Amino acid sequence: MDNEALMMTIAVLGGTGKEGKGLAYRWAKAGYQVLIGSRTPEKAIGAAAEIIELMDGGGSVVGMTNPEAARQAHIVVLTVPYSAHRDTLESVKEELKGKLFIDVTVPLVPPKVTKVQMPAAGSAAQEAKQILGEDAEVVAAFQNISHEHLLGNGEVACDVLVTGTSKNARQEALKLVDAAGLTGWDAGPIENSVVVEGLTSVLININKQYGSSHAGIKITGAKNK
Amino acid sequence: MDNEALMMTIAVLGGTGKEGKGLAYRWAKAGYQVLIGSRTPEKAIGAAAEIIELMDGGGSVVGMTNPEAARQAHIVVLTVPYSAHRDTLESVKEELKGKLFIDVTVPLVPPKVTKVQMPAAGSAAQEAKQILGEDAEVVAAFQNISHEHLLGNGEVACDVLVTGTSKNARQEALKLVDAAGLTGWDAGPIENSVVVEGLTSVLININKQYGSSHAGIKITGAKNK
Repeated sequence: MDNEALMMTIAVLGGTGKEGKGLAYRWAKAGYQVLIGSRTPEKAIGAAAEIIELMDGGGSVVGMTNPEAARQAHIVVLTVPYSAHRDTLESVKEELKGKLFIDVTVPLVPPKVTKVQMPAAGSAAQEAKQILGEDAEVVAAFQNISHEHLLGNGEVACDVLVTGTSKNARQEALKLVDAAGLTGWDAGPIENSVVVEGLTSVLININKQYGSSHAGIKITGAKNK
Repeated sequence: MDNEALMMTIAVLGGTGKEGKGLAYRWAKAGYQVLIGSRTPEKAIGAAAEIIELMDGGGSVVGMTNPEAARQAHIVVLTVPYSAHRDTLESVKEELKGKLFIDVTVPLVPPKVTKVQMPAAGSAAQEAKQILGEDAEVVAAFQNISHEHLLGNGEVACDVLVTGTSKNARQEALKLVDAAGLTGWDAGPIENSVVVEGLTSVLININKQYGSSHAGIKITGAKNK
């Protein structure tokens, strides 16, 4: 638990879902103040209680609406299903100004979730950038990590590829990857989000073809420390 | 060396380049008849001689023009720079009918090679499909393997993600991945090629940011045998 964590508040919008809850748990354990956002505040409060229970009563995790969580946080993380991506962003847009925004959304199009099908903007993260406007810094990360891994305490055999609108924003996000106990890599500009978001469909296909349940990827041949 | 290899001829178009030469070497070692194709037959003959020398005189590797190599082969592999992608395909289109076609092309746009920039078709492989027509079976593979790895004899710390227009075509290509001594995965439909081709830009970015020279990926959490 470092001093930076103690002073930073992270909002996890859509934090009642499995992925959001897993990330919130990891960051709360690392000492961050975590706010769980949801369209339904009762659900957010329930998810916060679940995470605190997982931590044996420790940690600072509070549930509230998405806009309220975004308003109170320094860093805002979006973990909603793609169908709620645009509406949630529109509802918190004003609260995101000047903040680091991390999009975890994967634009899956059911029922063909093994096929990469990106929105017109090129990827969910690029769509977020369009919605939030020219000045917004958008990072995309964590799309490939299975939530079972996050809610456990063990080592996660899947790296995190971090794309974003600036190197500085990617570096800030990589600190949160580290805080979550994961291995992260600067994967380049926001245009590269199509690779990282689309990789989720590739991994789902591998799970289906090879009878696995949480295929992931590791970068080889390079050292990130 | 299995019987199937002994009876199969693989054309490597653009096989005078490093990546093509590396793949040709691996397949020749596995017992396949290999044809090196080039726009300039003298260069193809030279590359074939180099590979035979690497194999201490063993192996069946012959150099010729791209259309002639495509005509004589059962399986055709394309390893040209993206700038030559369309012209080479047009020049061999008639020879590819009914054959397995494997596209190794990565649509990099210099000088910004760390940024994913796909052609209008969605990816080089989908562009190949458009050029070759409705009936063509197109597979995309091997885009992320560094040629230094291929020309060595050691284990390659990078998996091969195989996308393609049918499961059968992907299965056939996976046999060639295996024959090259690499680990391959069925990565789903041809639309997923954007992920695998784009991953090359992500890996180039990782090489640049972390001072490595041949970053790769491995799939975790699944077994492919």
